[in-house]
Amino acid sequence: MRIRPATSADHAAIWAILEPVIRAGETYALDRAMSREDALAFWLANEAFVAEEQGEVAGTYYLRRNQAGGGGHVCNAGYMVAAEASGRGVARAMAVHSFEHAKARGYRGMQFNFVVSTNARGVRLWQSLGFAEIGCVPGGFAHPGLGFVDALMMYRAL
Amino acid sequence: MRIRPATSADHAAIWAILEPVIRAGETYALDRAMSREDALAFWLANEAFVAEEQGEVAGTYYLRRNQAGGGGHVCNAGYMVAAEASGRGVARAMAVHSFEHAKARGYRGMQFNFVVSTNARGVRLWQSLGFAEIGCVPGGFAHPGLGFVDALMMYRAL
Repeated sequence: MRIRPATSADHAAIWAILEPVIRAGETYALDRAMSREDALAFWLANEAFVAEEQGEVAGTYYLRRNQAGGGGHVCNAGYMVAAEASGRGVARAMAVHSFEHAKARGYRGMQFNFVVSTNARGVRLWQSLGFAEIGCVPGGFAHPGLGFVDALMMYRAL
Repeated sequence: MRIRPATSADHAAIWAILEPVIRAGETYALDRAMSREDALAFWLANEAFVAEEQGEVAGTYYLRRNQAGGGGHVCNAGYMVAAEASGRGVARAMAVHSFEHAKARGYRGMQFNFVVSTNARGVRLWQSLGFAEIGCVPGGFAHPGLGFVDALMMYRAL
């Protein structure tokens, strides 16, 4: 697997990964009807990377500061994996890559503001990578199938 | 006191309130060097109100959704009071106004993502208004005088 900065040539591959996740609306707090243009603008607003397997984009992640000013030493990141590449460690590899990249950028911690609590696979992955649950918004997420479920805040020192 | 929607005629008065708070950098995670234009764009991005006393703008607040998609039923707000109007209940009056306005907009909860823990007056105010601490970013804020201090996440059902 090769993880490298995303380029404009990756837009179609990135959107192919983002679109089903956004349309499902089960794990990200993004409008389910979000347009390709808006989704790519959101994902690529700061730094974004892609994970390639045999020349195919299997996953993508973004990295940005989570707050400005006095909060600028903590970053935020988001990760998505192509459905057909699921279960092969792509998310984990991108996460490890992002920790190193964020440290090199001078960040001291990484914060996820909104991990949907019913995304058990995601929660387990972040816990296994050293993230602690540091907060919980009660009923913070309206899950399309399950109704109001908690949204977690997770943090990892870098 | 009269609380009403902000108009473009209020920009100078709003900036006069925002500027010292942003420059001090002790309570908001905003760049201390933020320009007037950027600060007003941030504050007025969605809905903003001002509190008037004897025709003078004594405080201002903004209201917006805190997350998109499945998180869109929780709002976020920010409040600032002119230094010379401090201690007269302006922040509390704006908060109560914002709860009613947010409820009328259909929001089910209000979340503060980043209450600097050393802002004791702010934390006490929010607690007295029914906010609970639902999270804490360890060392999440680089205070200009105190170094790294915790940042709290607070929530109130509406």
